[in-house]
Amino acid sequence: MKVARFQAEGEISYGILDEAEQGAGIEIVELTGDPMIAGFDTTGRRFRFEDVRLLAPVIPRSKIVCVGKNYLDHVEEMRDETGGGLPEEPLLFLKPNTSIVGPGDAIVRPAISDRVEHEGELAMVIGAVAKDVPEEDALKYVFGFTAANDVTARDLQIADGQWTRGKGFDTFCPLGPVIETDPDLSDARVVTRVNGEVRQDGSTAQLIFSLSRIVAHASQAFTLLPGDVILTGTPAGVGRLEPGDTVEVEIEGIGILRNPVR
Amino acid sequence: MKVARFQAEGEISYGILDEAEQGAGIEIVELTGDPMIAGFDTTGRRFRFEDVRLLAPVIPRSKIVCVGKNYLDHVEEMRDETGGGLPEEPLLFLKPNTSIVGPGDAIVRPAISDRVEHEGELAMVIGAVAKDVPEEDALKYVFGFTAANDVTARDLQIADGQWTRGKGFDTFCPLGPVIETDPDLSDARVVTRVNGEVRQDGSTAQLIFSLSRIVAHASQAFTLLPGDVILTGTPAGVGRLEPGDTVEVEIEGIGILRNPVR
Repeated sequence: MKVARFQAEGEISYGILDEAEQGAGIEIVELTGDPMIAGFDTTGRRFRFEDVRLLAPVIPRSKIVCVGKNYLDHVEEMRDETGGGLPEEPLLFLKPNTSIVGPGDAIVRPAISDRVEHEGELAMVIGAVAKDVPEEDALKYVFGFTAANDVTARDLQIADGQWTRGKGFDTFCPLGPVIETDPDLSDARVVTRVNGEVRQDGSTAQLIFSLSRIVAHASQAFTLLPGDVILTGTPAGVGRLEPGDTVEVEIEGIGILRNPVR
Repeated sequence: MKVARFQAEGEISYGILDEAEQGAGIEIVELTGDPMIAGFDTTGRRFRFEDVRLLAPVIPRSKIVCVGKNYLDHVEEMRDETGGGLPEEPLLFLKPNTSIVGPGDAIVRPAISDRVEHEGELAMVIGAVAKDVPEEDALKYVFGFTAANDVTARDLQIADGQWTRGKGFDTFCPLGPVIETDPDLSDARVVTRVNGEVRQDGSTAQLIFSLSRIVAHASQAFTLLPGDVILTGTPAGVGRLEPGDTVEVEIEGIGILRNPVR
């Protein structure tokens, strides 16, 4: 099931994509509230997909937890710049919720950086309060999955040592286009394109730490709340974004998150 | 003016401390809402200070921004362990809002760390949306000031390199006891005691980066929202906390934040 957060007729709602009717195009069935809290009751209203504006599918009230160094080939390409080899455990950092933008929203390059880079990633959206959950139960706490771009001012990330500022600017966490609640992520492609050209092309089969391991590990440090988002790391091929570029992160089975750069 | 968030008769409210009546003890005048959003209208109800339970004065909907390395003597004491010398700009990192606890709440040592340390700090509470604010206006965006303990699992901070996990555990950000909206911070003592013994004894006069510089710098990276909290760094003398200890952070003119360790 694909869940969208959208704006239509001036209001912001959650809805479910109805792709069943052949030829009639996709429709969105409006929900009464946030499905992470209020379940899947519908209002009875339906919108044509092309008539709504998709928004970031969630704005966490608490955390965006990110995992560094989770694809071997990316660890290799960053070894000289942000340091170190393979971690023994998932390496965690945070982005603030003020960095989130939705599909189609601009990524704004801050004046104090001249090296802003894309990092296309699979993101998990937490659906239930999770603390110290065992790995074997961890995915029960995940509401669904979406695409994310862990946009990074590489020059500031390197200069600071701590990654917070370089990865935390406003607009540096595009999310979307929808949350897929039940994708097949055994070997789903994670592809990032700039102006249509493939720059990163990995698969969830290459993750060093599994999705369940990441949730379990993060929940050992922090209580995870419904709506919290976890970014799961990026494959090799990160590179510069310039004003005027359009960057796409596509996760197989979920969708394409597309953002212009300003 | 001292602002408290408190629980009385089962309800959570904001209030203002009334210390004026000699001999009658301190009273709390209840406010109609969150003064960072709703101003200072009162409900007409008053409580005796000893009859209420003080809570963390704010739970940010977005960020706890922290500044590392902001007292020279602390930079010196940490040089070999968490690395590097004096930064040219305030070094920023984040703690999640799930790490906040209030006065009297226990700091819980996680099982995976055997070196949990105190870092007593002055904290600023943001009162208005702030983005790219100039240093000369920056303090206008601050609602008030409180005490904080930037509790740190030093072993995990060092092992990870990124400070997020070691500083982000649940209960690792005690805040309180109240927000003072207009303290004299030209040379206010920042003292941390463990079981009554002074461990850290600094002054806001020693800050490497001024409070206004910190707000301006943080607002260059992130939009700051009302209720966001900024921790301003810790003086020398950080050290271990053991179960059974009681740790106090006292900021002159604001109050004493006291927490047991479990």
